[in-house]
Amino acid sequence: MTPLSAGNARVKEARKLHRRSARSERRCFLADGPKAVEGALGAGVVVELFATPTAAEEYADLLGAAPVTLVDDRAMGGLSDSVNPAGLVAVCGFLDGQLPPTPRLLAICADVRDPGNAGTVIRTSDAAGADAVVLAGDAVDAYNPKTVRATVGSLFHLPVLTERDPALAVRRAQEAGLTVLAADGGGEVDLFAADDLLARPTAWLFGNEAWGLPAELADLADHRVRIPILGSAESLNLATAAAVCLYASARAMMSR
Amino acid sequence: MTPLSAGNARVKEARKLHRRSARSERRCFLADGPKAVEGALGAGVVVELFATPTAAEEYADLLGAAPVTLVDDRAMGGLSDSVNPAGLVAVCGFLDGQLPPTPRLLAICADVRDPGNAGTVIRTSDAAGADAVVLAGDAVDAYNPKTVRATVGSLFHLPVLTERDPALAVRRAQEAGLTVLAADGGGEVDLFAADDLLARPTAWLFGNEAWGLPAELADLADHRVRIPILGSAESLNLATAAAVCLYASARAMMSR
Repeated sequence: MTPLSAGNARVKEARKLHRRSARSERRCFLADGPKAVEGALGAGVVVELFATPTAAEEYADLLGAAPVTLVDDRAMGGLSDSVNPAGLVAVCGFLDGQLPPTPRLLAICADVRDPGNAGTVIRTSDAAGADAVVLAGDAVDAYNPKTVRATVGSLFHLPVLTERDPALAVRRAQEAGLTVLAADGGGEVDLFAADDLLARPTAWLFGNEAWGLPAELADLADHRVRIPILGSAESLNLATAAAVCLYASARAMMSR
Repeated sequence: MTPLSAGNARVKEARKLHRRSARSERRCFLADGPKAVEGALGAGVVVELFATPTAAEEYADLLGAAPVTLVDDRAMGGLSDSVNPAGLVAVCGFLDGQLPPTPRLLAICADVRDPGNAGTVIRTSDAAGADAVVLAGDAVDAYNPKTVRATVGSLFHLPVLTERDPALAVRRAQEAGLTVLAADGGGEVDLFAADDLLARPTAWLFGNEAWGLPAELADLADHRVRIPILGSAESLNLATAAAVCLYASARAMMSR
């Protein structure tokens, strides 16, 4: 079979999924690279799979019996937003993000704007054993190709929910039996002295990467928790703060 | 005074500092934006300070008595590598990175390649109270503008050393009385059950963002420590792993 070129109608349709509006309309997104494609295949959401002939051969084990559409390098360059495309892109149907019935650990990100940050928080939440991530407020699209890539497959491992109203996301977490802890540099609780609190089923609430959590949102949380800053830095960035908080919870929960 | 234009010789000379070769030769680098400039002024390393008229007014408190060279927006656009320049860039002399005589907490990054990752690890190390960061092996330049920006001022708060030979960096840390802990997904020590170990003066050894730590380097460490992965993620990224490890040390040291 001759690999399809960039001008092919199916390739062009798939390429449109770089735009959020096309993703929302068709409820499809692109998974780029072997890790993401592996996750998508595992989750059973692959609609169509594009590969260069070289990648189809290299990842033959991964692709297994899935029907693969071969494309040339230029077509792949348009499908991938990676600087060095791995040669493998899947069109995937939207995932079904549901909060599990009795969650123990949740991450709520309010107004996260950077796709890489959102993806890293999803990956870190997965690693720390969280049950779900909520992208709340005016947040980046979970299906943005940069977000998908930064999750390194974790988008397919745990539910990622969206909720336009961050206050509602907090209330829903509380109704699900979770204690909501706002990560807040000026918080009244010291993360290092909060193991009893951290051992409870918890939803962490994280703010925007530039301006943090608005006070009125932090006030809706059950407690505001500060990560001790021991040197001269003013703060941590969103992804590293989330990692420290989520792992503090994971540890406290495991030691009970 | 008329603001200098992009064609001005001093502006052009400063702009060359975007290149590593020019930085190495002149032992100068650029600090971009108010946070970095504040740090640079505090560290007393500012050689020359460029600002747009608007920024000079907006940051008058910060600039204080420092002599400021006004430049127009286009000249500033060339000096800053930021998408939205804050209008403030300082030419700074290289910092004097020395390991303190009795360090308690150190981060050694082997072969870190991404400027943003390196900067984030420096910022996180500062926040966790580390005494210094060592960029070892074939590492990104600490004075890369993207690294400087990602440190959000921390480059000026703690010494950042470089050492071409990662094995030598490990040995020097051991000679300084530090227990070297390699962050390694397959490590024999569980981070959650290592407080006695973590309470000792420690140098953390982190690997490259893509391929991690080579076994022969991890073997030089006194122990290899794994961060528990509780979900389906395969690993954490470099900056979040460093945050979890450094904060685990900070907490263990504080509780003694």
